[in-house]
Amino acid sequence: MANLKGVHFMLPTPFHDDGALDLDSFDALIDCAAQTHCVGVVCLGVMGEAARLTDAERALVTERVVREAEGRLTVTVGATGAATDAGVQRAREATDLGADALMVSPPPIPKQNLDAVSAYFHAVADASPLDLVVQDYPAQSGVFMSAAFIARLTEELPTAHWLKLEDPPTPPKVTAVRTLAGDRLGVFGGLGGVFLLEELARGACGAMTGFAYPEALVETQRLMDAGDADTAADHFFRWLPLIRYEAQEGITLSIRKEILQRRGILSSAKVRHPGAAIDAATRAEMHALVDRIAGEA
Amino acid sequence: MANLKGVHFMLPTPFHDDGALDLDSFDALIDCAAQTHCVGVVCLGVMGEAARLTDAERALVTERVVREAEGRLTVTVGATGAATDAGVQRAREATDLGADALMVSPPPIPKQNLDAVSAYFHAVADASPLDLVVQDYPAQSGVFMSAAFIARLTEELPTAHWLKLEDPPTPPKVTAVRTLAGDRLGVFGGLGGVFLLEELARGACGAMTGFAYPEALVETQRLMDAGDADTAADHFFRWLPLIRYEAQEGITLSIRKEILQRRGILSSAKVRHPGAAIDAATRAEMHALVDRIAGEA
Amino acid sequence: MANLKGVHFMLPTPFHDDGALDLDSFDALIDCAAQTHCVGVVCLGVMGEAARLTDAERALVTERVVREAEGRLTVTVGATGAATDAGVQRAREATDLGADALMVSPPPIPKQNLDAVSAYFHAVADASPLDLVVQDYPAQSGVFMSAAFIARLTEELPTAHWLKLEDPPTPPKVTAVRTLAGDRLGVFGGLGGVFLLEELARGACGAMTGFAYPEALVETQRLMDAGDADTAADHFFRWLPLIRYEAQEGITLSIRKEILQRRGILSSAKVRHPGAAIDAATRAEMHALVDRIAGEA
Amino acid sequence: MANLKGVHFMLPTPFHDDGALDLDSFDALIDCAAQTHCVGVVCLGVMGEAARLTDAERALVTERVVREAEGRLTVTVGATGAATDAGVQRAREATDLGADALMVSPPPIPKQNLDAVSAYFHAVADASPLDLVVQDYPAQSGVFMSAAFIARLTEELPTAHWLKLEDPPTPPKVTAVRTLAGDRLGVFGGLGGVFLLEELARGACGAMTGFAYPEALVETQRLMDAGDADTAADHFFRWLPLIRYEAQEGITLSIRKEILQRRGILSSAKVRHPGAAIDAATRAEMHALVDRIAGEA
Repeated sequence: MANLKGVHFMLPTPFHDDGALDLDSFDALIDCAAQTHCVGVVCLGVMGEAARLTDAERALVTERVVREAEGRLTVTVGATGAATDAGVQRAREATDLGADALMVSPPPIPKQNLDAVSAYFHAVADASPLDLVVQDYPAQSGVFMSAAFIARLTEELPTAHWLKLEDPPTPPKVTAVRTLAGDRLGVFGGLGGVFLLEELARGACGAMTGFAYPEALVETQRLMDAGDADTAADHFFRWLPLIRYEAQEGITLSIRKEILQRRGILSSAKVRHPGAAIDAATRAEMHALVDRIAGEA
Repeated sequence: MANLKGVHFMLPTPFHDDGALDLDSFDALIDCAAQTHCVGVVCLGVMGEAARLTDAERALVTERVVREAEGRLTVTVGATGAATDAGVQRAREATDLGADALMVSPPPIPKQNLDAVSAYFHAVADASPLDLVVQDYPAQSGVFMSAAFIARLTEELPTAHWLKLEDPPTPPKVTAVRTLAGDRLGVFGGLGGVFLLEELARGACGAMTGFAYPEALVETQRLMDAGDADTAADHFFRWLPLIRYEAQEGITLSIRKEILQRRGILSSAKVRHPGAAIDAATRAEMHALVDRIAGEA
Repeated sequence: MANLKGVHFMLPTPFHDDGALDLDSFDALIDCAAQTHCVGVVCLGVMGEAARLTDAERALVTERVVREAEGRLTVTVGATGAATDAGVQRAREATDLGADALMVSPPPIPKQNLDAVSAYFHAVADASPLDLVVQDYPAQSGVFMSAAFIARLTEELPTAHWLKLEDPPTPPKVTAVRTLAGDRLGVFGGLGGVFLLEELARGACGAMTGFAYPEALVETQRLMDAGDADTAADHFFRWLPLIRYEAQEGITLSIRKEILQRRGILSSAKVRHPGAAIDAATRAEMHALVDRIAGEA
Repeated sequence: MANLKGVHFMLPTPFHDDGALDLDSFDALIDCAAQTHCVGVVCLGVMGEAARLTDAERALVTERVVREAEGRLTVTVGATGAATDAGVQRAREATDLGADALMVSPPPIPKQNLDAVSAYFHAVADASPLDLVVQDYPAQSGVFMSAAFIARLTEELPTAHWLKLEDPPTPPKVTAVRTLAGDRLGVFGGLGGVFLLEELARGACGAMTGFAYPEALVETQRLMDAGDADTAADHFFRWLPLIRYEAQEGITLSIRKEILQRRGILSSAKVRHPGAAIDAATRAEMHALVDRIAGEA
C-alpha cells in the first residue's frame, strides 16, 4: 500500500499555443510539486483534459510524468474509461508504465445504476495491484454514490484505500464516509481546495487538486497536522480569495494555466477547444489578485 | 421605473419548528435589511422556498412583507410560474398586493426553447406595470440564456430594466451583458455574494442575495462606489470565509437560517423537507466561523 | 384496499381556448372512461398538466371528477408535491374530497437521495388511509428508484399496494419488481401504452395512461386475461401505429387533446403555454392515422 | 458531393463473447446491407459503441468496413470527438482510410454554447473534403440545436449537405428544417426507424439507423418514392411492433445484436460493459416477435 497522505498536485496537461502536446513543460510542473513539498502528482484527470487526449498522447503523458517524478513524488494516473474494458486497459497501461496509484471515476451510464458501477470498479481493481483512488465527482461523472455505497465498495476492493471526494457539500460527506469506513479509507479533498480547511478538520488525509499555488495547501495541512488550527485558518483564509477566484465554474483550468504561465511553469496557457479561454478582463483580475495575495503570502 | 440600485436582502421564508409559516419573523428580517442599509428586500425566490409554499401561503408572505417594508425598503416579489398562466397570475397578484418589482425566472421547459421563454416573459411583462427583474439562474431553471438573448429580450420588454445574474462564471457575463445592453439594464449579482467584488468592478449595480450579514455586502458596495476598490477588497475578503461557507451547494439555506437564528432574527432554522438540514458538526463549524469573522468585522 | 386492477383513463385537464379551466368537459371524459370499460380515472397527473394549475384549480378538478365518477369508476388523484408538506396537504385534500386512491411521485431533489425520497413517501402515506400508487417516472421526477428500493419502500408503507411503472425499458422492470414484491404490489403500465402488451405478459395488473382510445387498451387486457395472447397481440398491434404516434416526446398531450376533440369529448385542444401545440402537418397526420386505425378497429 | 439518399445500415461493432473486437463479422453485416439494398453503411456511431473503443480499434474498424464495402456501399464514418482537436484528427483519419462521408455530433460542453459548437463543426469541416453528416441527437450530445441554427450552420459549411435528425418529435422538425434549408440539405431519420414513415412523408431523404431488418426500411422508402403511401404504411406498420420493440431505451443495442445473431450475421450478441445485456424473458419476447413479424413479412 502506497502512502499517499498529503497534498497531490493535480497536473494540467500542457499544450503549445497550436494545441500540440508540450511534454517538456511537465518537468517544471513536477519541479513545482516537489519544491512546494507535495507528496505526489496526479495526471490524466478532468483538469488534465484527459478526455481531450488521444490514447497515444495519454501514454506519452504517463511516461513523462513517471520518469520525471521518479524518486521524488508519487504518481497517480487517471484511468477512468468510457467503458469497463477501457478502464481495465488504462489501468494496465498505467501500471506497466510505472504509476504508483490509479484514480478512477465511475463510467458514463445513462441511468443511476450502482450495480454496474460496482462491477466496473471490481474489473478495474482486478486488473492492477496498484492502490486505487476512487473519484467521487458526480458533476462530472453523472453518478451519485452515497457514503454507504462508497464504504461498501471500498471495503470489497482490496486496493481501494483512497477516496477523492468531490461531491459538495464536502465537509459533511467527509464525516459521513469516515464514520462508516474509519481509517482504512484515506479521504482527499479536491474541487480546487475551496473547502480544504474544513475537510482536514473533518479528518481528510490531504488533497488532490490543481490550485496553482500548491504551497498554500501544503502549509495549511502542515499547520493542521501540527495542531495549530487557528494559524492554519489564518493562512488558508489569506489565500482564499485566489482559491475561490481560480475555482470558477467553466474557466478554472484556463485561469489556472494563466497563473502557471505567469509563474514561469507553463510556456502557454492554451486549453484545447471547446475548453473556454478567459477574456482580457478576467486575465487582468487574476493578475491583480495574484499580486495582492501571492505577494503578501 | 423603480430605483433598485444597491443590495437587496433576499428573504428566507421563516417557519416554526413544526413547518408552519412564521409570518411574525418577517418583521425582524425586514428590520435587519433596513438597519443594514439594504435598498430593498426580495421574497418568494428559490431561497425563500417559494416552491414549497401553497398559493395561499405565497399571498400571506407578500402581504406581510409589503406591509412591513412600506416606506423603508423596496419589495421585489418572485413571480416565476410553472407555466405562463401561472406566471401571469402571480405577477398580477404581487402587483395588487403592493409589490414594487417582480422577479421572474424562465419556466421549466423540457428542452432549450428560447422562443417559448421569450413568449412567457412577454406575457408576464404585459400583465403588470411593475419593473421586472429577469432572473438568469440556469442551475435552477434549466434554461441557458446567452448574453445576446438577454440583451434582446430586455430590450423588447418595456419594464425589464433589471437582471439578476446567477450563471457562473458571473464576472465575464456581467461584462458581456453590459457590453450589449449598456446602462439601460441594471445587473445584480446573486449566488450568495461569492463574486460580489468582481461583479461590482465589472459594473453590476448591486446584489440580490440572502447572505446572513447583508451589512458586509452593503459596505463592500459603498466602498466600491466611493472609488476605494482596495479597501473594498480588504473588507470583502475579511468576510469571504463566511460567505463561501454559507454558499455550500445544497445546504446554503440551512446554514443561512442557522446564522439568522443565532443573530436573533429567526426563531427557528427550520427548512421544509426535503430541504436538507445540517448536521451538528456543520453547525459547530458555522458558529466558530461566525465568531471569528463577524467578531472581528 | 381498493381494487384498481384494470385500465385507468388518465384524464387530461380540459381548458377553453383562452386557457380557462373547462370543468364541464370532465363529464364527457369520464363518460368515455365508463363507456370504454375502464376501471377508473386518474386526475392531476403530469398529463393532467397538474403543475400548470393553481391550488384552487386543483381542488375544483378533484371535486368535479369525484362527483362525476361516483359509483361508476374509481378516482385516483395525483398528490405529488414539490415538498413533503405540500404532498401531505395534497394527500389530505384529495382524501377529504372523496378520492379512492392517491398517486404520488418523488419530490424534486437536487441530488439522488433515496433517504429523503423514503421519508417523503412515509409522510404522505401517514397522512391518508387511501391506497397509494407510487409513480416511478424518472424522466419527470429526476429520481431513479431501483426495483429493490421500490420493493422495500412499498413493503414499509401499509397502503402502497400499487406501482405506476414508467421507467423504460418497462418490461424487464415489471419482471424485476414482481420477482421481489410478488402479488402484494399491483403494477400498472403507463407511458401512453406503447409496451402494454409486454407489460401485461410480465404480470402487470393494468395500465394508467391517457391514450385517447382507452377501449383499445381495455380490449387488449381483456384478451390477455382470457388467455388469448395471440389475439391480444393482433388487437394491440392494429392500434400500435396510433399509440406510437400519440406518444411522441413533447407533443403527446397536444396530439391526445386533438384526438379527444375530434371524438367530441373535448371542446378545445388547448394546452397551457409553454406546453407545445402541434403544427398543421401533425394535425393532418393525426387525422389520417385515426381514419386508418380507428376506422378499421 | 456523395449521393447518400436512401437507407444506411448503422453498423454495430461486433465483439467476441470475451469482449475482443470481431472484425470478421463486419463482412456479414456489410453483405446484409448490400443484399437488403441499403445505399450505405455507417460505422463508429453511438450504436457502434464508438465511445467504448480504443483509438487503435477505431482505425481497425474503419479499415475493415471500407475494404469490405468498397464498390458496393457508401461508407460514412462517425468522427465525433470529445474536443475539437480530436474531431479534426478523427475526420482526417477517416478521410485517409477511404471513407465517403463523415458523421459528426456536437462535442460535450458543460453548458449550451452554440458558438463553441459552430467553431467545432467549422474546424472539422475544414479538415476534410468529405461530405459531412451533422448528427442532431441531443439525448446523447446534450446539445440542443434549433432548426434555425442547423440551417445556418449547414449553409456556412460547404460540405454539410446532410443531417441525421434524432431530436424528437422528429416529423415536425423535418418540416421545420426543410422549410428553412430546402433541398440543399438531405435529412435522414434515425432513432431505430420508429417514425420513418412520417419522416419520409415530410421530405426526409432516407434513414441512418441500425434496425436489424434494414430491408423493412428500404421497402418502406421504395414504396413512398413510388408514390404509394398507402402500401408503404401497410408495410411499415406490419414491421412496427418489432421496430418499436428493438427501440427500447437502454437495451436497443442488446436486442439488435441478439436479432442479428439469430439471423446468422453476428457470431455473438456481446455488448461491452456497462452496456446493458437483456434478460432471458426479453430474449424470449424478441424471438416470439421476430417469429411473428419477420415470418409473415
